[in-house]
Amino acid sequence: VSPLPATVGIVGLGLIGGSLARDLAGLGARVVAVERDPASLHAARAADILHAGGAEPELLDDAGAVILALPPRTAVGMLPGLAPHLRRARWVTDVAGTKTSILAAARAAGLGPRFVGSHPMAGGTGSGFGASRAGLFRGARVYLCAGEATADVAAATHGFWERLGGVCVPIAAGEHDRRCAWASHLPQFAATTLAATLHRAGIDTTDLGAGGRDATRLAASAAALWTELAADNGGHLAAALEALHAGLGDLLAALRSGDAAAVAALLEEGRRWRGGEMDAAANPAEPDRGR
Amino acid sequence: VSPLPATVGIVGLGLIGGSLARDLAGLGARVVAVERDPASLHAARAADILHAGGAEPELLDDAGAVILALPPRTAVGMLPGLAPHLRRARWVTDVAGTKTSILAAARAAGLGPRFVGSHPMAGGTGSGFGASRAGLFRGARVYLCAGEATADVAAATHGFWERLGGVCVPIAAGEHDRRCAWASHLPQFAATTLAATLHRAGIDTTDLGAGGRDATRLAASAAALWTELAADNGGHLAAALEALHAGLGDLLAALRSGDAAAVAALLEEGRRWRGGEMDAAANPAEPDRGR
Repeated sequence: VSPLPATVGIVGLGLIGGSLARDLAGLGARVVAVERDPASLHAARAADILHAGGAEPELLDDAGAVILALPPRTAVGMLPGLAPHLRRARWVTDVAGTKTSILAAARAAGLGPRFVGSHPMAGGTGSGFGASRAGLFRGARVYLCAGEATADVAAATHGFWERLGGVCVPIAAGEHDRRCAWASHLPQFAATTLAATLHRAGIDTTDLGAGGRDATRLAASAAALWTELAADNGGHLAAALEALHAGLGDLLAALRSGDAAAVAALLEEGRRWRGGEMDAAANPAEPDRGR
Repeated sequence: VSPLPATVGIVGLGLIGGSLARDLAGLGARVVAVERDPASLHAARAADILHAGGAEPELLDDAGAVILALPPRTAVGMLPGLAPHLRRARWVTDVAGTKTSILAAARAAGLGPRFVGSHPMAGGTGSGFGASRAGLFRGARVYLCAGEATADVAAATHGFWERLGGVCVPIAAGEHDRRCAWASHLPQFAATTLAATLHRAGIDTTDLGAGGRDATRLAASAAALWTELAADNGGHLAAALEALHAGLGDLLAALRSGDAAAVAALLEEGRRWRGGEMDAAANPAEPDRGR
């Protein structure tokens, strides 16, 4: 296991950045944070997890590793301005739910050999430093896109996430973005559209049973983050949404023609795939359950 | 509070019927159960909650109250054959997720004045006696459709569910079926169609994060039950599915034209409606969370 650098920089003290700061401080690292929001900085200082923090990127000058904990387009936009302050960083990574654009931006900024794209599948619908907590990444899948990184840098990033309890899955950026369009972004927008549909029909959240609360829970996710993810993964997401749209069209046709066998077959397909008891086996911790 | 009859009949020992039998036995009632499946009867006898059980409707002859714990079309189909054995029953009710058809069937069977349609919103995705448990209805909303029932019968049914911890909501059958098409049946079929879509795209359930697991959890529901509910509420359900289908079409158009403002507005609408922290307040118990 490669050692943790003495000083680790984090850009963005939201749910993910704040949780990283808590874990890193707990491991004894000096955490320096770049964050524009005074309230988040104040809260992080009150939690006694920062060595230094402020809006100025010079704070990163001495960091041996730097993590961009930002939405994907924000990260791409900030990277050129941050790059001059990443000279001491042995490795640099990010945490966004899309990976192609940030790898291209890292290469353009001359960081290719030292940059690995990370995507920890953790966080739930909370947002902001107030929702951060220690141990957030324990048991979470972490996709790692090494791109042009050296083997040393890839191994260091891998080791870093494993120290936080993550389960690392190396993957090419294009395949990551395609898979996450289906497995992560489609469920988000299905839940969001379902919620908006119920809202417009005059249904109140108190009318939902436990199943309806589950199906719409993701709608509470941070809108600004998901607007960026949708824009950044628009092509793959549109393909996934098109398939869901077509599936609903088929179901509508079956209902209208009284084709109970087709309705039953769809229900059976979903049931076989989802299973009744997969939750406990797949992720005993279910870290963001209930948010 | 009207007293519980000494003998209560239950038709169907699935998740709901089995849970009712457990609660009623716990309250000291003699439970007689009509159930065709020998394994369910065996399990209920092993749980020591039955006074008598078997396939023959004559078991209900002495019951002072009878509950049909069956899918809606099964209940409608069985009611004429059961009616001659409900003469001693002071009140008769059911538990299905649609209410118009069963009220019509009860009236046709001459049970109108003694029949109230019930819909306890409890159960989750489990099914069968093996998924039943005591206390299932504690804190659950129970819709009550009194139809042509006498005031005494309506009050007795109301009192019965309150004794099991239910929160009763009287409602007209037509309004119930419309509201549940949106608040219950639409989330079910959204989750089912989402699951089938992910299955066809080659996504594995282990690729899901906690949010994706939430959004697809309902897909694990019992297919036979939901085939009946869809058939029995087809008109209202088609209207709700049509609205979701149109909403997804609008989102697709926004994505394809790069209209980030429209995507952001949809996300914000869903977030405002669903809220981030409504779960704990709405239902502290969340009885079927995690199934």
